[in-house]
Amino acid sequence: MSEEKTANVVADRTRLSPAEARSLFREGLVTQTSGWSSGWTQANLLALPKDRAYDFLLFAQRNPRACPVLDVTEPGEISASIFAGDLRTDLPAYRVYENGEQVAEAAEVMAYWRDDLVCFLIGCSFTFEAALLAAGVPVRHLETGTNVPMYRTKQECRPAGALAGPMVVSMRPIPEDLVATAVRVTSRYPAVHGAPVHVGDPRALGIADLDRPDFGEPVEVRAGETPVFWACGVTPQAVVMRSRPPFAIGHAPGHMAITDARDTAYLVLP
Amino acid sequence: MSEEKTANVVADRTRLSPAEARSLFREGLVTQTSGWSSGWTQANLLALPKDRAYDFLLFAQRNPRACPVLDVTEPGEISASIFAGDLRTDLPAYRVYENGEQVAEAAEVMAYWRDDLVCFLIGCSFTFEAALLAAGVPVRHLETGTNVPMYRTKQECRPAGALAGPMVVSMRPIPEDLVATAVRVTSRYPAVHGAPVHVGDPRALGIADLDRPDFGEPVEVRAGETPVFWACGVTPQAVVMRSRPPFAIGHAPGHMAITDARDTAYLVLP
Repeated sequence: MSEEKTANVVADRTRLSPAEARSLFREGLVTQTSGWSSGWTQANLLALPKDRAYDFLLFAQRNPRACPVLDVTEPGEISASIFAGDLRTDLPAYRVYENGEQVAEAAEVMAYWRDDLVCFLIGCSFTFEAALLAAGVPVRHLETGTNVPMYRTKQECRPAGALAGPMVVSMRPIPEDLVATAVRVTSRYPAVHGAPVHVGDPRALGIADLDRPDFGEPVEVRAGETPVFWACGVTPQAVVMRSRPPFAIGHAPGHMAITDARDTAYLVLP
Repeated sequence: MSEEKTANVVADRTRLSPAEARSLFREGLVTQTSGWSSGWTQANLLALPKDRAYDFLLFAQRNPRACPVLDVTEPGEISASIFAGDLRTDLPAYRVYENGEQVAEAAEVMAYWRDDLVCFLIGCSFTFEAALLAAGVPVRHLETGTNVPMYRTKQECRPAGALAGPMVVSMRPIPEDLVATAVRVTSRYPAVHGAPVHVGDPRALGIADLDRPDFGEPVEVRAGETPVFWACGVTPQAVVMRSRPPFAIGHAPGHMAITDARDTAYLVLP
């Protein structure tokens, strides 16, 4: 599956409505979605058979920073209350797992769909990036038009039933004088991962080399910047790889579901 | 089951540790718990058989203002990660339901316990009352030493599986010049119901008479005050009464689980 740099594909991607963006993805455009449809909430996808749904919902309840659940479908449903599109085709890219092994990466998953699948839409930190920019905090991977770097950590999530695995984090390099602002701004969005889980040395999280992310693409950390880490909605896929349920479908990391919910719906305004 | 006014029973109830409070309840003290163990999070209880647990967890996800889940036990467990006591004895009072009918109100539920029960601990608005007082917002039922008034509304929750029912709210009369402060302060605690769901006319919620609450005790609304309504963790029991699962145990409204979690653990600080 080839992929062009987003910036070259759709110049006005920040202004597309969710329905317009989903239409492009349904027609076959494969791209990471950071910066797309500014003001609209983006979401991670995990689809699991119904008999695994309780374990996952409990896992999410026990790990709310990594897995803030925004919506859950009825078994077999292809839309969700915050996603009027088709969950089988309207994300830019998917990953399919059997017994925890990735068996496909694809632009749609019609052939893999099952009527017993429950879809979980999970908050994504792309959602608060517009708020970071508005507060004057630069977002490096938006500047470079690349996917955000994501890393498996050595920090274990709280298990639930048959599900266990490590927390995955996303990383943004933040100028040291803007770290406090980045914390304040993202704290206002607990449903899309909220405040950072770690500021500073990646080795404290068990990350050996920032230049080799487990998902997404690396970005430069410049002098005067500190790496800042947020819990990431790819965590459920790390859990699938570890816990090996018979079947699962996720989004390709960074290639998100663009929902019909406004960012402000998840803004805590004290 | 008789009950004395809290203020007369334990003079220093605000200063008791959670373990000390639970010990009094385990020994048989029956009291509503508003104002108890200041700084510690209070929780609603709903225990359901495991085969109903997914429906309830999904119901809670779909109704987060009424049902913010703080903790979930494994089937048969009698403690929880935020509650080191015994869930069968360490709340001041319980209600037991069979097919949606209340069959008992009791100070402990040892005789009713089942090994397949999953306990849900759900945020309680008593948690933010200390913050209201600290911000200069008076809390009438704390002044009178009575239970908070709670009302069934005409607002339906989003159903999930076999579970449906009306939202229950708690009411506090707030001086009109402090309504904004009350909103700001409680917004910071989304995990314990957060901001009010309604400010003003109770008839908009389908409440005919503030003096006749469905749960708890009435309080006076004085000149210059507005009734302010928060979603309430008694909602799950209204759902049990409507949806009639074969078996359930809840706390007696206002007679909460006092947990080992600090209020500040649920404070969103932007």
